Amino acid sequence: MREIRFAFDFISPYAYLAWTQVHALAERNGARVVAEPVLFAGLLNAHGQKGPAEVPAKRIYVFKDTLRRAALLGVPLAPPPSHPFNPLTALRAVIAAPDDARRPLIDALFDATWGDAEEKGIGDPAVVAAAADRAGLDGPALVERTREPAIKDALRANTEAAIAAGVFGVPSLRVGDELFWGLDSLDLLERHLRGEDPVTPARVAAFTDVPASAKR
Amino acid sequence: MREIRFAFDFISPYAYLAWTQVHALAERNGARVVAEPVLFAGLLNAHGQKGPAEVPAKRIYVFKDTLRRAALLGVPLAPPPSHPFNPLTALRAVIAAPDDARRPLIDALFDATWGDAEEKGIGDPAVVAAAADRAGLDGPALVERTREPAIKDALRANTEAAIAAGVFGVPSLRVGDELFWGLDSLDLLERHLRGEDPVTPARVAAFTDVPASAKR
Repeated sequence: MREIRFAFDFISPYAYLAWTQVHALAERNGARVVAEPVLFAGLLNAHGQKGPAEVPAKRIYVFKDTLRRAALLGVPLAPPPSHPFNPLTALRAVIAAPDDARRPLIDALFDATWGDAEEKGIGDPAVVAAAADRAGLDGPALVERTREPAIKDALRANTEAAIAAGVFGVPSLRVGDELFWGLDSLDLLERHLRGEDPVTPARVAAFTDVPASAKR
Repeated sequence: MREIRFAFDFISPYAYLAWTQVHALAERNGARVVAEPVLFAGLLNAHGQKGPAEVPAKRIYVFKDTLRRAALLGVPLAPPPSHPFNPLTALRAVIAAPDDARRPLIDALFDATWGDAEEKGIGDPAVVAAAADRAGLDGPALVERTREPAIKDALRANTEAAIAAGVFGVPSLRVGDELFWGLDSLDLLERHLRGEDPVTPARVAAFTDVPASAKR
């Protein structure tokens, strides 16, 4: 079965919106979703970029844009108690969870960030534990495991592997070597899965070989 | 008649693709397009951001993504001879052109960048002049005018006004105080024009008032 590798960080409302759509997309196309928690701040550091929340004009715009898109998708979107927040415990909890519990755990953690959970704010480990409880796990034990070096290393390794694969933002969805970035790329990803991708390696090469003639 | 203020730089293939769509969108909704040339590098400098072409992984991705979107729109997209290139002469030529010649001039300059014009590469003033000739203008005279201080000042003023209005990327489309960024926002802009914008100021305020609890 083909895999859609879904690289995400809870910090991103676009990752939340894409997560609400990607499972149905996968089912329609005989694929399965593999969730890959990555630290968005690590991607930004690696590429020397600022995140949307770090550019004041863009921060406001992103909130408006995600409100519009959530309304069109019929998905609840409510503000987190703070943003940006520290997502490390939540990301590590996903890694520490058993394979078959990851999807409900991610659902619960996104709900506790951007959705309509009662208790929100996953920068707080107690909120992470409560979300894990709701997902059918032992929340306090899971949060305890997020402090293990092997779990911390696994999140770092995920982030580095994503960077090595060309990931520069979240959500990023990969099918084989093909990368799709952002909520708006879901339709392009779906065409790719259907064998209707209009891009060929030769057409891409004609662009990537173009030299620069100006720098800032 | 309502105005769609289209802030753009020829450097952006998304601006090109959006330009091929925005006039029909405006006509469908009883609006008119006002083209506002801005220097994308000036936006990046003001916000301390890197452009997509300055992040190697993103540069490749953007070319692929625009190829896919161009194919879906049925719009030709062919590589420019170099990228990034210096867009100043082309942007200033648009400012120096008479109002009623701007649209054909922008068409010709975009064709000579991302489209299928025979002579491409508008970093070269001779190519800008040839495009202006095709748009029915006196190309060499127009290029001569791009050296006038008043024209250079007008491009700088456009860029500064856009930054002051919250513009952080291109294309940016403004209707009144409402900003829409990127090719993917055209559908949201159209809903806004139709009075079907799901975003209200109160919902936006609930997000913009959220404090940060973490920094990189």
